[in-house]
Amino acid sequence: MAMDEHDYRFLCELAAQLRVDSVRASASAGSGHPTSSLSAAELMAVLLARHLRLDAGDPANPANDHLVFSKGHASPLLYAMLKAAGVVTDEELLTFRGRGRRLEGHPTPRVPFVDVATGSLGFGLPVGVGLALTGRKLDRLPYHVWVLCGDGELAEGSMWEAFEHAGHEGLANLTAIVDVNRLGQRGPTRHGWDLAAYARRIGAFGWHTIEIDGHDPGQIDYALSDARATRRRPTAIIARTCKGFGVPAVEDREGKHGKPLDDPEQAVAELGGPRRLTVQVNPPTIAGTPYAFGAGSLELPEYRVGERVATRTAFGAALAALGTADGAVVALDGEVADSTKLDAFAEAHPERFFECHIAEQQMTAAAIGMQARGWKPYAASFAAFLTRAYDFVRMAAVSRADICLVGSHGGVSIGEDGPSQMGLEDLAAFRAIHGSTVLYPCDANQTARLVADTAGLKGVRYLRTTRGETPVVYGPGERFPVGGCKVLRTGGHATVVAAGVTVHEALAAADLLEEDGVSITVIDAYSVKPLDSEELRTMATATGRVVTVEDHRPEGGLGDAVLAALAGAPVPVVKLGVSEMPGSATSQEQLEDAGIDRGAIRRAVLDMIRHSAPVGGLIA
Amino acid sequence: MAMDEHDYRFLCELAAQLRVDSVRASASAGSGHPTSSLSAAELMAVLLARHLRLDAGDPANPANDHLVFSKGHASPLLYAMLKAAGVVTDEELLTFRGRGRRLEGHPTPRVPFVDVATGSLGFGLPVGVGLALTGRKLDRLPYHVWVLCGDGELAEGSMWEAFEHAGHEGLANLTAIVDVNRLGQRGPTRHGWDLAAYARRIGAFGWHTIEIDGHDPGQIDYALSDARATRRRPTAIIARTCKGFGVPAVEDREGKHGKPLDDPEQAVAELGGPRRLTVQVNPPTIAGTPYAFGAGSLELPEYRVGERVATRTAFGAALAALGTADGAVVALDGEVADSTKLDAFAEAHPERFFECHIAEQQMTAAAIGMQARGWKPYAASFAAFLTRAYDFVRMAAVSRADICLVGSHGGVSIGEDGPSQMGLEDLAAFRAIHGSTVLYPCDANQTARLVADTAGLKGVRYLRTTRGETPVVYGPGERFPVGGCKVLRTGGHATVVAAGVTVHEALAAADLLEEDGVSITVIDAYSVKPLDSEELRTMATATGRVVTVEDHRPEGGLGDAVLAALAGAPVPVVKLGVSEMPGSATSQEQLEDAGIDRGAIRRAVLDMIRHSAPVGGLIA
Repeated sequence: MAMDEHDYRFLCELAAQLRVDSVRASASAGSGHPTSSLSAAELMAVLLARHLRLDAGDPANPANDHLVFSKGHASPLLYAMLKAAGVVTDEELLTFRGRGRRLEGHPTPRVPFVDVATGSLGFGLPVGVGLALTGRKLDRLPYHVWVLCGDGELAEGSMWEAFEHAGHEGLANLTAIVDVNRLGQRGPTRHGWDLAAYARRIGAFGWHTIEIDGHDPGQIDYALSDARATRRRPTAIIARTCKGFGVPAVEDREGKHGKPLDDPEQAVAELGGPRRLTVQVNPPTIAGTPYAFGAGSLELPEYRVGERVATRTAFGAALAALGTADGAVVALDGEVADSTKLDAFAEAHPERFFECHIAEQQMTAAAIGMQARGWKPYAASFAAFLTRAYDFVRMAAVSRADICLVGSHGGVSIGEDGPSQMGLEDLAAFRAIHGSTVLYPCDANQTARLVADTAGLKGVRYLRTTRGETPVVYGPGERFPVGGCKVLRTGGHATVVAAGVTVHEALAAADLLEEDGVSITVIDAYSVKPLDSEELRTMATATGRVVTVEDHRPEGGLGDAVLAALAGAPVPVVKLGVSEMPGSATSQEQLEDAGIDRGAIRRAVLDMIRHSAPVGGLIA
Repeated sequence: MAMDEHDYRFLCELAAQLRVDSVRASASAGSGHPTSSLSAAELMAVLLARHLRLDAGDPANPANDHLVFSKGHASPLLYAMLKAAGVVTDEELLTFRGRGRRLEGHPTPRVPFVDVATGSLGFGLPVGVGLALTGRKLDRLPYHVWVLCGDGELAEGSMWEAFEHAGHEGLANLTAIVDVNRLGQRGPTRHGWDLAAYARRIGAFGWHTIEIDGHDPGQIDYALSDARATRRRPTAIIARTCKGFGVPAVEDREGKHGKPLDDPEQAVAELGGPRRLTVQVNPPTIAGTPYAFGAGSLELPEYRVGERVATRTAFGAALAALGTADGAVVALDGEVADSTKLDAFAEAHPERFFECHIAEQQMTAAAIGMQARGWKPYAASFAAFLTRAYDFVRMAAVSRADICLVGSHGGVSIGEDGPSQMGLEDLAAFRAIHGSTVLYPCDANQTARLVADTAGLKGVRYLRTTRGETPVVYGPGERFPVGGCKVLRTGGHATVVAAGVTVHEALAAADLLEEDGVSITVIDAYSVKPLDSEELRTMATATGRVVTVEDHRPEGGLGDAVLAALAGAPVPVVKLGVSEMPGSATSQEQLEDAGIDRGAIRRAVLDMIRHSAPVGGLIA
């Protein structure tokens, strides 16, 4: 498929059109990143016209190649490509960054052929790895994944998690196209135009690397052919380009990042004026049907009431069962599957289990890539270490991704390992994610049921599990609607709202208080978000006093969620949480030292009764 | 300094003692990571006895070398070293992981000579880079920084941010000792004993690499000498070791991670029994006085009331002024200093400005390393991108670190760039950090004053700034105590609590409501944590209705903080926040679409009045 002179001319013209349209779109918006678009125009022109394979009329065609703009700020270039391919009109192109318009400042899946939102640098390549893994191991289709990367974003560690993962897996269906335009946002990148510096690094991670002039369609065409043809290794095309190429006023100049051109009309003229080229994108070579794993019936594990089982153990067993029932369920591990108990899934469904090693960002991004192709990923690590991927969780929400993250070892109750291993901010972090569901079961049967129920939910779901064994409270048949809660005890003196490990402390406190002649209502708020506001208000109003107790920092977690539900209700609330820095100690000592154990709950209830707070008085 | 046979025998004996003590400590605790300690015993024995230079009697001696256990789970080995050096007693060694004891499951700065908490893998080396930068560019002392790394943690992207930063800076005063024991927590690492795979990667990032047998004191001694002697480049010693070395029951066996030995007595016997060796650690070669930058008087920028200035601009100017007043203030950038306006500091104090490129984890870790040596770091990026470093912020708190993080571009008010660039979860995330201070100024003079005041605070401080220009509300002389608030208007119908950009919307709403015959109290809650609960309760009770309004998700931010302050007060509260996924639009359109602009505030107040909610009725 050698390129003839006709092709060459066409590609140069197409690149010019992409430039012109990038400039026009940014000018019409009055903002945007035209210079970052100009540098990659030939790279994308050749890719679009000669190498990308997709059904321009059907973004959902499973055989389509995937294109991820990891340098998401070059969105004008992406939209110019879509215009050239006939996917968006010129009229729509000029709505760039307009209120309510889908051509946003950075790409999101509102735009056809965009799998994920980008714009947080270092995110697109890890997602591309996830898509390539999906093609190879799940869909089992020969589509290719192309990722346009910036040079500046190679400073992000997440990119190297991606290079390592893809290199080790030998993902030949993945190509990174690195637009080395030398200039970051503030100034020069570390390596400037030293293409070899990038090639050494990426090559050391097991990739095939090609260094080219990124403005020469011939070299680009060769490199893209070579990338598709290369076996056993992913390819990185490291392209020397010029930021702002083609427009003298901004070409290779600092201080021109992220701004529309001062004189877009002159720029368009210098670029030879608007063209009306269209590209017939090559269709996929085969009609593809994604591989489907067999599915059976759902047989969740069942536990006897009173038995002591860690919720993490129930999670692992339940996810394995869910995997048997639903062939679309897949699991990703951060090299702690023996702790999170994801190992149960790995044993049952090795083909759908992905070891991501200690790389929580890549793990999360791979999950996001998989759901973009319709798979149902569950990714698990310690709750504490999921904070590593918080930006990617945020970007999952912007990507409208449907993923489930599972954090084990929630709270101080993990015991001796100490604060570095304790998830104490996770409920706050996940509650703040748009459209998220936050679940925190207290026993094994509840965990199993919630694992099964999360499979049908949209958006980012977070399930928190506990390290230690806790007694089974609920029978196997019990249901736990998301957005519901369970009233485990009823009593008139106060309502204690707990979740997870503190449910058991609250029940023990109820027993202790019984001896004091005090009866309390105990609520298991397993659905932290959405919270069962109605039931909570009812019980709070009925008892006149509320204590919330959580194995989590006092800010942003269960206590704050309950306060939001009770806003304006004239009921005093005491919020118990982990307000000091823990050290090492046994699980029960930790709960005691943090003031969230049965004794602390008992004291809080008795204090409230003793002080008989006037309505509206602050007790917390 | 060649090693004679006496040394060799001593080092072998010392290594055996470190093993024995690691086994004993873990056995006494009943938990811990002895096998991960056993693999690195020779590495640490040779380092301690022959290469580490520190004043064992004075952890604060500025000339001391620094030792960071990036593989923090090998804490028994660290504590065994400290025992050998006479810093902790054998009695204390056996308190490992005990309640209230300082020898925690993973190291924290409660232990002498421990600069930072470790245990979240991938954190120690980036902090080591920060310490090495400090030695070279701030303290200007010849101390060496030694970092013991695990092989498993090389999967973390943060490690590669560190390799890149150190390699590019040529930090010859930094040595990474990689304990390649082949086994992670769950199973084999990606590269097993392929030392060359690590050497290729690390070498490609500009490091000097040495591959050795990590159980041969002679090779270790040579490598450590070579590392200290190497100029212009950091050194990575890549040591082939055996997990559980010396104890046949666990040696090189899977499933033995993070567990005390089944038969510690036999293991101690196999290791030749306890020894009573002590090590006279070599003192620093020179008495060191850290470099001090000149200091002058504090002349904060001042702005006229009514002038329109972005708070990010005031931040940059104020930090530059603070840097002039206090020579200990340093600044770190994530390659967005032109946006965060940290550029003002870079221009004024180039020697104390650190460009970390797009690597927020390394930026944060470097700040943590710098504060460990007494410097006062301010690290800034977009609020959205600081979420990349959330685990490191959490570890900063466990490290008792005093750092200030500044997040610009808070909220939807950034406008057209869209949701990937919007900090919408930052207030929740930072509120949940232990001991944190969260500030969100609304005008330039307030920002400048808060920048100056944060310099004296402990712990993690977070300052959120706004992209767009906002009118100056306060005169230059005004003070803003942390934990306080400002009552900008007083009116009897409702209290509106705002912060940052929404303060201006609230003031505009007050004007609109005036026309409706309604007067409101407007509170500027610039100190989100700690919040001025007392004043808020007073005003809320006086007005009987509260509206909170924030450019942030409804969960975990200002609204939840206010609800916590008002807990139990019979005052209805409506919480306005960003509850939908924004797209692109102008700043004012975004505020309107999110329902947090003047119109939305006005409607919320009028609705509350109209419905005259019964006390306790839910309005939110």
